Formats: sequence, C-alpha cells, structure tokens
Amino acid sequence: MDHLAHVSNQPNSQPQSQISHLALDIGGSLIKLVYFCRYDDSCRDDDELRSQNESLGSKSDNSRPVLGGKLHFAKFETSKINDCLEFIHSMKLHLGGFHDCTAPSSDKIFIKATGGGAYKFADLFKEKLSVSLDKEDEMECLVTGANFLLKAVHQEAFTYLDGQKEFAQIDPNDLYPYLLVNIGSGVSMIKVDGDGKFERVSGTSLGGGTFWGLGRLLTKCKNFDELLELSHQGNNRVIDMLVGDIYGGTDYAKIGLSATTIASSFGKAISDNKELVDYKPEDISRSLLRMISNNIGQISYLNALRFGLKRIFFAGFFIRGHAYTMDTISVAVNFWSKGEAEAMFLRHEGFLGALGAFMSYEKQCLDGLTVNKIPQRFPISVSSAGNKIYCSMNGKSNGNESIECTVYGT
Amino acid sequence: MDHLAHVSNQPNSQPQSQISHLALDIGGSLIKLVYFCRYDDSCRDDDELRSQNESLGSKSDNSRPVLGGKLHFAKFETSKINDCLEFIHSMKLHLGGFHDCTAPSSDKIFIKATGGGAYKFADLFKEKLSVSLDKEDEMECLVTGANFLLKAVHQEAFTYLDGQKEFAQIDPNDLYPYLLVNIGSGVSMIKVDGDGKFERVSGTSLGGGTFWGLGRLLTKCKNFDELLELSHQGNNRVIDMLVGDIYGGTDYAKIGLSATTIASSFGKAISDNKELVDYKPEDISRSLLRMISNNIGQISYLNALRFGLKRIFFAGFFIRGHAYTMDTISVAVNFWSKGEAEAMFLRHEGFLGALGAFMSYEKQCLDGLTVNKIPQRFPISVSSAGNKIYCSMNGKSNGNESIECTVYGT
Repeated sequence: MDHLAHVSNQPNSQPQSQISHLALDIGGSLIKLVYFCRYDDSCRDDDELRSQNESLGSKSDNSRPVLGGKLHFAKFETSKINDCLEFIHSMKLHLGGFHDCTAPSSDKIFIKATGGGAYKFADLFKEKLSVSLDKEDEMECLVTGANFLLKAVHQEAFTYLDGQKEFAQIDPNDLYPYLLVNIGSGVSMIKVDGDGKFERVSGTSLGGGTFWGLGRLLTKCKNFDELLELSHQGNNRVIDMLVGDIYGGTDYAKIGLSATTIASSFGKAISDNKELVDYKPEDISRSLLRMISNNIGQISYLNALRFGLKRIFFAGFFIRGHAYTMDTISVAVNFWSKGEAEAMFLRHEGFLGALGAFMSYEKQCLDGLTVNKIPQRFPISVSSAGNKIYCSMNGKSNGNESIECTVYGT
Repeated sequence: MDHLAHVSNQPNSQPQSQISHLALDIGGSLIKLVYFCRYDDSCRDDDELRSQNESLGSKSDNSRPVLGGKLHFAKFETSKINDCLEFIHSMKLHLGGFHDCTAPSSDKIFIKATGGGAYKFADLFKEKLSVSLDKEDEMECLVTGANFLLKAVHQEAFTYLDGQKEFAQIDPNDLYPYLLVNIGSGVSMIKVDGDGKFERVSGTSLGGGTFWGLGRLLTKCKNFDELLELSHQGNNRVIDMLVGDIYGGTDYAKIGLSATTIASSFGKAISDNKELVDYKPEDISRSLLRMISNNIGQISYLNALRFGLKRIFFAGFFIRGHAYTMDTISVAVNFWSKGEAEAMFLRHEGFLGALGAFMSYEKQCLDGLTVNKIPQRFPISVSSAGNKIYCSMNGKSNGNESIECTVYGT
C-alpha cells in the first residue's frame, strides 16, 4: 500500500468525468463509504440508468446545474482498512473532497468522515492517500442521514412482523419526534426532534460487536454473515432456559409469561452434562441473536416510553435486513409496549452515518474549481433504485446498494 | 435415594425438640431452603445464642408462647436435587409442614414451596419424602420476603460504591414504593407498593444463568463461585471494545462518553488474530460479569424512572455479596440516573422467595397437634445474627446465614 502515498492528488489532473464525492463512517467494526457518481462518469453502470437520469436531469432548481447520478455504498471491515484504502485509491474517490477555502493556495484535500475511526485513522489516510479527514460528529451524522432517508427516499422505512415486510408511509411533515436506534458494534439511542435537533438519550454495549465477538469465540465462524446465516437453522431452546423448563412445562400465567418465554438466555448451559463442543453452532447463534435483539428492543422501548415516542427506527449494520433479527426486535418492542409502540427498519440501515457525513459537504465554502461538481443539496424528489445490488467492486466489499438521485450544483 | 420413599412421615413419632419448619424456593439453577429451629432443638449451634434467645424469649405478645430460635438458610444446585432431598431427610425437615385441616383424618403433610420447581418437582417430593408441596406464587413470595427483611432485620440493606459498604437506615413507615430486582437465573423487576401490593413490571433474560451458562462455555470453570472469583483478577479491556479503542484513545466528550466507557461488550473478540484459547478465563469472566451487571443496572433504572421509584433493591443469588458485581450495578444505576437513583443490596439476597414461602405458613389453618410449634408471626424486633456463616451441612451447601429470631405460637 505504500505506493499510494505517492499518488497525485490534484483534481485538475482528473478528467471531469471521473469526479466523485466520498464520505466515510469509520466504526469499531466496519468502515462505511458513500460516494456520488454522475451518470456520465466512470461509475456508470448501464445505459438504462443513464436514460433515467436524463429525464431526472431535466429538472432544475434556481437555475443551478442539476447533476444526475447515483449514491453508491460500500463497506469494509475496519480491521482490513488497507483494502478500503486500496478501493478508494483504485476508484480515485479520494480526489472528490474539497479544498480549504480559507487557505486558497493550499492543495490540501479534505474528505468528510465520521465515527471514531475518523480520529483514529486520520494519520493513515494522510500518509496513504494524502487527504485530510474532516471530522463530523457521529450522532449528528446519524441523525442527518436518517432524516434524509426518511424524508427523501421512497419506501425507505418498513415494519417487519411475522415474516411480513410492510412499507411505512412516512409523512415528512409528521416525522418528529422519533427514537433512532443505531446498532453498530455498540448501540446508540437518539431522540430526534427535528433537523439537527437531537439528543443521545441512551445506548447499550450489547450490540453487533457482542453478537459477532461472542459468536466467534463460541462457534469458530469465520465471518459475521456466516454466523447470522447459521441462526436460521438454529433452535434457541436447546441452550436458553425457558419458563417451561423451570415450571415443568407449564406457563407462569399469572404474570403473563408463557412456557416458551426465555427465562434465562444461555441458562441451560449451566448443566454439567454438556461442554461447548456438544452444542451446535446454529443453536448458539440463534440464542445469541435472540438475546441481543431482544435486549436492544427492550431498552429501546423503555427509552421511547420515557420520552413519549411512538416510532422507533432501528438502523445500523447489525441488522443487515436479517428477517429473524428484525422479527425479534419487533416482537420485543411489541411485547414490552403491549402493542403501544412499533419497530421500524430502514433499507439503508448501515449507512446513516456515512450519508450524514456526505450531506455535510453542503456546509463547506467551496473553491471555484470544484464548486460545480460537488453535490450540494438533495431534492426531496430523489428517486430510489430499489433493492438492486450493484456490482461488488472487489471481493471484500458486498451488499452495495445505490440510490439514484439528482444533486444541484451552485 | 429410593429408601427415602419409605420413611415415616408421622409428626407424632418425632420428639418435640426436633420440630422444625421448612420452606423451599426451587428455581432454575438453585434450590433455596429456609427452616426454623427452636434453640432447644437439635439445630442449636452454641450456648451463646441460647442465652441470647433466653433474653429475647422473655418478650411476649397477646399471651402467646414465644419460641426463640433461628432461621437457617441453605442452598443446593437444582440439578443436584437429590442432595437436597437427602439433606431434608437427614435433618427431618420434611416433618415440619402442616396438615390439611379441611381433611382432619388425613396424614398428608404439606411443605410450603415456591419457584417453578415447586411445580416441576412436586411428584419427586411426593415420591421421595411423602410430602406435598403447597405452591405459593413466586412474585408474592419474593415481595413478602423482601418486606420482612427490610422491616424486621437490622442492617439488612446497604449501598455499595467504590468499595464502600454502607448500611442504609430504612424507616419501615417510609419503605414504599420501591423497585425489587431479583436476579436469579433470569431477572424479575417488581414494583412494590405495600404488603401484598406489587406488580411485576419488567425483567430480563440476561441474568445469573446467562453469566454462568456463557461463562461455563467460554472458560470451562467448574462452578459459579470459581467463575466469579476469577473475575477479580481479570481485565475487561482485553475483550471489550472501549470508546477509546474506536476513537484512537480519546473520549467522545460531546456526549459524555469517556475513553474507558465500554462501547461494545466482547467487541474486541471480532478480531481475526485471537481464538477463544488465546483469552484468559479471568478476562472473559470480568467482561461477562460487567456486561450482565451493567445491563441489569440499566434496565432496572429505566423501570424505576418509569414509575418514579427512587430506591432499587437488588437481590437474588447472582450477586452473592460479590464486590465487583455490586459495584458495577451501583455504577450503572448512578451513571444512567445521573446520580438520581441509588442501588441497594440485601444481606439475605438469595432467600427472598424461600422466606416469603416460609411466611405464608401463617395463612394456614393449623391442626391442634402442631399449632403451638409453628412459627406464626415475626415480630418487628427480630434480631439478626449478623454475617456469621454457620456450618455447611454437607459439601454442596454453603453460604448458609442464619437469622436469630423469635416467633409466636398461637
């Protein structure tokens, strides 16, 4: 990777067609990337999308140029940050930052970044890509990203219960207040009252990192998705102690606990008769997933209740659109709220922070050179390309989901 | 154990000096026993206590005979229920139940019992000891036991913070409302408004069974106490992902998270570089204990907040007077409540349910034969024998702690 340090970082040397804009969210487990590509640049995927763009591109606002294109998403494991740097370099994404207009003679390029890794890895980005990371507050980015998705992207939010996915009609004028629960390595719970109006009210350390960390130790799975996949075939009753196990098969009806309610997660593992090798990885995975999802659902509900919030949106890369995870969270919220509150999920669940960092470009004063190429404002009429997965740029990056949109230049 | 089935169960055949009264709380992991012995019976421990009793015994209420004696406590693992049956048999504790006065000719003896095992193991008690378990509601017993301890036993409740244990002065007239958090295999959270006035408002499946179950799988420890002991020498930072790990060593000060705050429990275990065998059992134990204690503290606080309860009493056998457990729960309650709420602990933490079952004897109509030997009502002036641990009756039962007290006959 050392050769990256010597690469030119002059925007002028790039053909206009390759200009993109990149924002990063560097978390404890994953690095999330959002980058915008115009349809007429090298990120273009197919002619069909180009023709769609042409129709979108005909719209205009205040005579500013309209740039049709797509927001692309990618992710890498934080431990494999060199793969991420390589990807950014190969795509020349690092050239799409901004220059510091307070020092016009400077060639310094800034890339918007959030998450703890924006601090931790700032020197590495400087060394390898010759860019500075312009740090944006993590919670602010999550909220900006969520508000954007909920207001601008059609069919972004949905409920999931009993295997049924149902898109929610969100009135942008009746969005606030809501509770945003972002499940990354850890979990943040944020009360959102408006654009830029929010408070981190709670959180829990039992998050995606706990599922994957404990899961790795207990099952020897090699990656998060494999562990999640395993849980499909698992049966949590093998390891969890149920109310019925304690009560000899019956309910504890007086307080509304059925025989199948989990009394103690992993409680059956106290038995002397079995060691770790005697349990199936799929059963362990299922118990673990249920323990963590249920706990997050419960704490989220208690916080929603505390502030009188009816809507709870769950996001973050822990979920990954996984049916059983969503179902457990939904059931937990429904159970603890006695049907009063409802869990909702976001299609672009993992990219809130990166999207928020991306949106923060509009706060910058931009120099003349790049001004008409930088996305400035997302129109509310942004269209979505749906759930299509676009090409993986390399073997390590998967699950990219782009949003087709138009942006306005100045 | 089969010989037990043939033992005589006639109270008449017992010398009066051996009459005791027994109540059971049979949970998912542990069986808790409470039994009362008069000082002049075979349970007597030493002359000093006898002389104390004589002075206590001089008190009288409504001319009823006063019986001085001690409440004894014992516990067994539920999986080793045969040891428990053997203990009860050898101590002849099963003879101190009551007869069904609605069927005067019946020799049927009932023993008060609570917990799910009172249902699950009813047939076993019948078969082995020829006694019937008279089932009392689990939550009701916990509340009765807690109210008894908080009102009647001197220096029962205490706070624990920064290594300092401080006894709380509880005014029996200003006890309610409070939140009772019983941490057994699972966790129950009960809002207590008065004698017999309560509601189970919440709970979590992440309890003592989770600590011990996951701990067994991850460390190969052979018993709960060994695992708890290990945590003393452990360092949770080896496995937990801290805010500082994500932020490159710095705080996330804006939202009040210091660099040492746990962002993700077991989050460092996502690393490809280490397998389970590469982690020290003591570090695993510490992370596990902190994860579960902190989570219970948080959910408890959120429920206390919901109902405006300032006092939270933590009980159940998970705690075992363990300094680090209490410290973590206290810190969690203090952290999430911003100092508004306070965690308190009970010296007889593990025996609330069994005590409550024991107290329920007073509800029974009693036959003429046993009436003057059965404890009926505990005076508020009951004294405590302090933290002394009395003899373990066998190798598997330890941590017995008796309460010296007087009871009134009728």
